[in-house]
Amino acid sequence: MNKYALVIHGGAGIILKENFTKEEEDKHLNKLKEVLEAGSKSLATGKSAMDVVEQAVVMLENTPLFNAGKGAVFTYEGKNEMDAAIMDGTSSEAGTIAGVSNIKNPVSAARAVIDKSDHVMLVGRGAEEFAKEKGLAIEKPEYFFDQQRWDQYQSIKESCKQQLDHAGKDGSVLNILENNKFGTVGAVALDIQANMATASSTGGITNKRYGRVGDSPIVGAGIFANEQCAISCTGHGEYFIKQVVAYDVAAQMKYQGISLKEAASSFFNKIEKLKGLGGYISVDKNANIEMPFNTPGMYRGFVSSEDSQTKAFMYGD
Amino acid sequence: MNKYALVIHGGAGIILKENFTKEEEDKHLNKLKEVLEAGSKSLATGKSAMDVVEQAVVMLENTPLFNAGKGAVFTYEGKNEMDAAIMDGTSSEAGTIAGVSNIKNPVSAARAVIDKSDHVMLVGRGAEEFAKEKGLAIEKPEYFFDQQRWDQYQSIKESCKQQLDHAGKDGSVLNILENNKFGTVGAVALDIQANMATASSTGGITNKRYGRVGDSPIVGAGIFANEQCAISCTGHGEYFIKQVVAYDVAAQMKYQGISLKEAASSFFNKIEKLKGLGGYISVDKNANIEMPFNTPGMYRGFVSSEDSQTKAFMYGD
Repeated sequence: MNKYALVIHGGAGIILKENFTKEEEDKHLNKLKEVLEAGSKSLATGKSAMDVVEQAVVMLENTPLFNAGKGAVFTYEGKNEMDAAIMDGTSSEAGTIAGVSNIKNPVSAARAVIDKSDHVMLVGRGAEEFAKEKGLAIEKPEYFFDQQRWDQYQSIKESCKQQLDHAGKDGSVLNILENNKFGTVGAVALDIQANMATASSTGGITNKRYGRVGDSPIVGAGIFANEQCAISCTGHGEYFIKQVVAYDVAAQMKYQGISLKEAASSFFNKIEKLKGLGGYISVDKNANIEMPFNTPGMYRGFVSSEDSQTKAFMYGD
Repeated sequence: MNKYALVIHGGAGIILKENFTKEEEDKHLNKLKEVLEAGSKSLATGKSAMDVVEQAVVMLENTPLFNAGKGAVFTYEGKNEMDAAIMDGTSSEAGTIAGVSNIKNPVSAARAVIDKSDHVMLVGRGAEEFAKEKGLAIEKPEYFFDQQRWDQYQSIKESCKQQLDHAGKDGSVLNILENNKFGTVGAVALDIQANMATASSTGGITNKRYGRVGDSPIVGAGIFANEQCAISCTGHGEYFIKQVVAYDVAAQMKYQGISLKEAASSFFNKIEKLKGLGGYISVDKNANIEMPFNTPGMYRGFVSSEDSQTKAFMYGD
């Protein structure tokens, strides 16, 4: 049988052992393993990389543990505003959705953009209308509500108000981001037909304003896949957009002939130098896996034909 | 004095001599020259590349001759929905705006995203709220109205309805795009301090639906600038997003050490092979200029310290 691999992440950030009880830790790691086990079964039985990354991200969206779908963080207006994307490395087809509030699984709406439209990117109410017309599950605000996220939002709103009195160009929340994990979920996969795919989904930054969109739904920035590799990023979205991070990994491999591992070192050097924050997960056509990040932690895990035991981590060890 | 250069475009598409009267032709070429002359004066007197690309795009937005700002095309709902972006090659700072209907000069709103927020991309009503708060000029729908665009919209709407009965995944307009020019405007510049910048602005595709966003406001796809080059694209946005075209030019120069001219040949080969449609304008730090496109025509022009006479073209000669 040909090789297969699945890598997933649930966001990078200040994820430190001292901030978690054993029970909370287990809850996160077990959920990652559950997603990996389901994906591993699918890949072993011949499912496509596209189907598997969608399935993995749907599972991560459906748990309130991560900042995507159910459990998305709240905007300045107290709403959930989600983005998602998916890309097929073989066909180069991509679909992305940004600024939607009522789609149960934004990643499936992004998939529908590929399958049921001639476009790549749909935003806002137009994207919601599209999803509804194509029969995707729509949910009321209550579905996305999570008490912990709401408390987080209230406390950040309060600290932002205070910061507004002192500094900050428009009182945006970037300067207090260090106290919050970057919430995104993502998956990359290699299937036994040697196709690769990538997907991502996010609720963005707590208390975000002005219809801010990060890197998650931006092809080249938050996700990219071709016939050599598949990449899904998480972190400070503005950095990832300006540095076109996901495509930069693929471009170095294509134009310099370097390996996935060498590209990961180069990412690490660059993000340190430019003071960005975040990481990415990646896979190549030989089932090599890299998961570099420069934050204290990143929820992450992988499984592959080389070792069918699922591996999940969250701290920087 | 150090070198400077300014390159602008007003969209690529089916721009054929037989479809224009001499008067219409002159109107387009003279407007391009007027923009180049203003930009040339600014660059010669030491203005920054960022100021000059913004100024050039504002002038192109303010004329109804091109599909951006005043004269933007109509969406499926009969509205104007505009996108714009600007990026500084020296600092890597970028600002983009998508899906806005009432901002007089979307490119200046994109500039304000850099100067007055910590974000890169703002979309929809949030972006409009931001622009208003930051004091940008807001206009009513009548300002953007152009009779010719409206007639174009009505006729495309009619032909789309007919097409819906026959084929097309979601009745989108891609299959009739061949009959319409791709409307975008853009500018790239090199200033005498050796900084480069790029900007773009568009009304998108006539009769577009579902909050569709093209490549114009996507860093890496429609625009990119670093310390080696500045690029601004126009064409079938979906192709430019999936191929991350603007950053691909820069990546080839950076990782393969090729020239702006060689990158233009590679773009041409790739877009032909993948059946994309469009082109781009570009400048490098030595004031070299490339303007490749594979459509019958592209409104374009340039001026530089090497030859202060403005040059403007629209057909594929």
